[in-house]
Amino acid sequence: MERIYATYLIETPYEVEQAVAVLAGEQSRETLLFVSKETEELKKYFAARVEDIELLEEVSMPSMPGNFVSGTTFKRAKVIVSWPVGNFGYNIPALMTTLMGSLYESKQFTGLKLHDFEVPNSYREHFRGPKFGMRGTKALAGVGPKHPMIGAAIKPSLGITPEHTAHFVKQLAEAGIDFIKDDELLTSSSNSPFAERVEKVMHVINAHANKTGKKIMYAFNITGDSRTMQSNYETVVNAGGNCAMVSVNSVGWTAAKQVCNWGGLSIHAHRNGWGMFNRHPFLGINFPAYDKISRLAGVDQMYVNGIDNAFWESNDSSVESIKSCLKPFLNSEAVLPVVSSGQWGGQAFETYKRVKSTDLLYMAGDAILGHPSGIEAGVLSIQQAWSAAINGMSLEETANDYKEFRESVLKFGSKELLNKESVN
Amino acid sequence: MERIYATYLIETPYEVEQAVAVLAGEQSRETLLFVSKETEELKKYFAARVEDIELLEEVSMPSMPGNFVSGTTFKRAKVIVSWPVGNFGYNIPALMTTLMGSLYESKQFTGLKLHDFEVPNSYREHFRGPKFGMRGTKALAGVGPKHPMIGAAIKPSLGITPEHTAHFVKQLAEAGIDFIKDDELLTSSSNSPFAERVEKVMHVINAHANKTGKKIMYAFNITGDSRTMQSNYETVVNAGGNCAMVSVNSVGWTAAKQVCNWGGLSIHAHRNGWGMFNRHPFLGINFPAYDKISRLAGVDQMYVNGIDNAFWESNDSSVESIKSCLKPFLNSEAVLPVVSSGQWGGQAFETYKRVKSTDLLYMAGDAILGHPSGIEAGVLSIQQAWSAAINGMSLEETANDYKEFRESVLKFGSKELLNKESVN
Repeated sequence: MERIYATYLIETPYEVEQAVAVLAGEQSRETLLFVSKETEELKKYFAARVEDIELLEEVSMPSMPGNFVSGTTFKRAKVIVSWPVGNFGYNIPALMTTLMGSLYESKQFTGLKLHDFEVPNSYREHFRGPKFGMRGTKALAGVGPKHPMIGAAIKPSLGITPEHTAHFVKQLAEAGIDFIKDDELLTSSSNSPFAERVEKVMHVINAHANKTGKKIMYAFNITGDSRTMQSNYETVVNAGGNCAMVSVNSVGWTAAKQVCNWGGLSIHAHRNGWGMFNRHPFLGINFPAYDKISRLAGVDQMYVNGIDNAFWESNDSSVESIKSCLKPFLNSEAVLPVVSSGQWGGQAFETYKRVKSTDLLYMAGDAILGHPSGIEAGVLSIQQAWSAAINGMSLEETANDYKEFRESVLKFGSKELLNKESVN
Repeated sequence: MERIYATYLIETPYEVEQAVAVLAGEQSRETLLFVSKETEELKKYFAARVEDIELLEEVSMPSMPGNFVSGTTFKRAKVIVSWPVGNFGYNIPALMTTLMGSLYESKQFTGLKLHDFEVPNSYREHFRGPKFGMRGTKALAGVGPKHPMIGAAIKPSLGITPEHTAHFVKQLAEAGIDFIKDDELLTSSSNSPFAERVEKVMHVINAHANKTGKKIMYAFNITGDSRTMQSNYETVVNAGGNCAMVSVNSVGWTAAKQVCNWGGLSIHAHRNGWGMFNRHPFLGINFPAYDKISRLAGVDQMYVNGIDNAFWESNDSSVESIKSCLKPFLNSEAVLPVVSSGQWGGQAFETYKRVKSTDLLYMAGDAILGHPSGIEAGVLSIQQAWSAAINGMSLEETANDYKEFRESVLKFGSKELLNKESVN
């Protein structure tokens, strides 16, 4: 009988075995009663099963506050629990409720984080995974395997008109960009209505494609209610676009899956809100599990932050996330990792050194639009950095050889050093 | 110009004013650049605005771990930030991304929790709120204003067949129950396919309604992908049902809103996963904000835990949540608070004393199905408790006067005391 295996990090003031037994019981039988008709076989069939317990450290302060007797110690462990697939079948939200439901409210735990899960082979028959994924998305944008996609986020997020956005798009296109996106805060605003922005932007992109043969990918932010997303999606398709952006945590996985099912656009999944689920080391969900949910839904592109990002995430965590996106799952196409947050050309070297891959979308905003010699130099500085990194050059050598990159080091490199000296 | 006002609890190693300015900037302009075409007026119009800062305590340990210089103090504050509605209009996910997006990842904060938000009057024209809500749902179940709805969750969650579920439903119906629900773990399982469960259960409920005139409300768990939810919803409608259950955090708010928009069933919103968003006092979202998102989506019934619940939530928090559901919002119907988790008749007294209202759904599982004198006595024991509580009797007086309630005190009251002596 096929089972789903989930790995958790837990913390408990009780004995670990006892706490994990409650986890398994709560998430399958959930009753303290002996119910006469529930035979022993049924119990065995439907019950969650504790597969493995690896004890970790004990701590004196609980991850989640509470009133505990002085001297209580909190035991941490990595545990594996499994469920029969027959409990919920091939239903992502039901899977989520099983793996991540009431557990987080349980008194047995002062910390609980879903780390990863494994699905059985039959899931391959029910979930296509990403329609375009890493290779399909790069192909749509006309980017070969030897280079990463280079992307720009239009800044400022809000307050600019469709004409102004299109003006930036034209400059970015001429500078050789592969990918451009709306900010996640911009859906349809009073001075940038969605349909008008699509029209103005796609006019530039289509004209550029006619001239050069390269169709730049633009991620239009269709995030909204069902009807809005469907109509905005159609607007993008009709205008000849090839990508839509969805704030997946804000719309939820059912709506995200529906958008992916339509299959006509590469879906750029923005994970804003992620810090709420992931930032605490003993609460929420880790990227390997989150990545799998997103791939069951079928998103093509997923955020992973990046080296020396502007957020709290560590470099190790970002690197692991990139690798997670590129790992095989469901026999389907890999997800394109979207490397972003405070990125300029300087991080290309460490990114390539650690990831050893160009299968990523490298996003910069300020570093392109704010380059001291203009947008073209901004795009060039990042292309220079990536080509040099791939060819084994160092940051210093690249700064010596390439003017545009050198200028970006002076502007964005010093800022980065400044950040490194700050409290965090 | 209309604005949305959001209240946050924050914690920062920086100066509070500086951290909040970053919050406001990140969630509206999000750039470090001076972009020449962004005029001062545009900036003023679209920028988030810090409206109020109330300094709270300073602490020596950060809520979110990190590498901090020894001696760093972490300043807490309650802050109000506002955004012009024109930034995102009437789009719930865009509102969520604005209020709860990248903020949680910001290095500026070692803790951040959205507490509440206020929407302007124009939201009333774009959001209906709950179609049935508190009064409509009670009316559908044939429960008048003077009594709470009494509900039972079928246990065990998984492993029982549609026939067996229907058998429980028949017993519960004859015992005078108002409401019955699937467990959140049960959608369509190998031995309880959804359509078959609906058929068997509704056969009993419709027969009971024909005989007695009372149509018991059954919350069928339609949680799933879009197509599954739509088809399951229609199955319930066609069978004469009046309610569907959705695990709102698992499907997300866009899908939840779509289900509510259909308007034919009272939507029982299960908030499993809630602990992930709420359990840490300085991470995530508090119930007043969550409740408003759910009411914008239009759910009719919402979980609030309850007095002495089996989870980690405090009584104060549960009581505040019940009151939040019953507060006016959008000029629409209130949400029916679903009081649950470890409830038996014993908590009716404290619940009524603190809430002073019968406008709630009082859920029991074990206390009804596991009553020592059977299911009828189980339902009766809770009805006795509520009638007594409303009439100002004490738990002790009620136990003296009513046999079934007395039996439940002996079985479930002692368990409760046991819980009170545990580590938590």
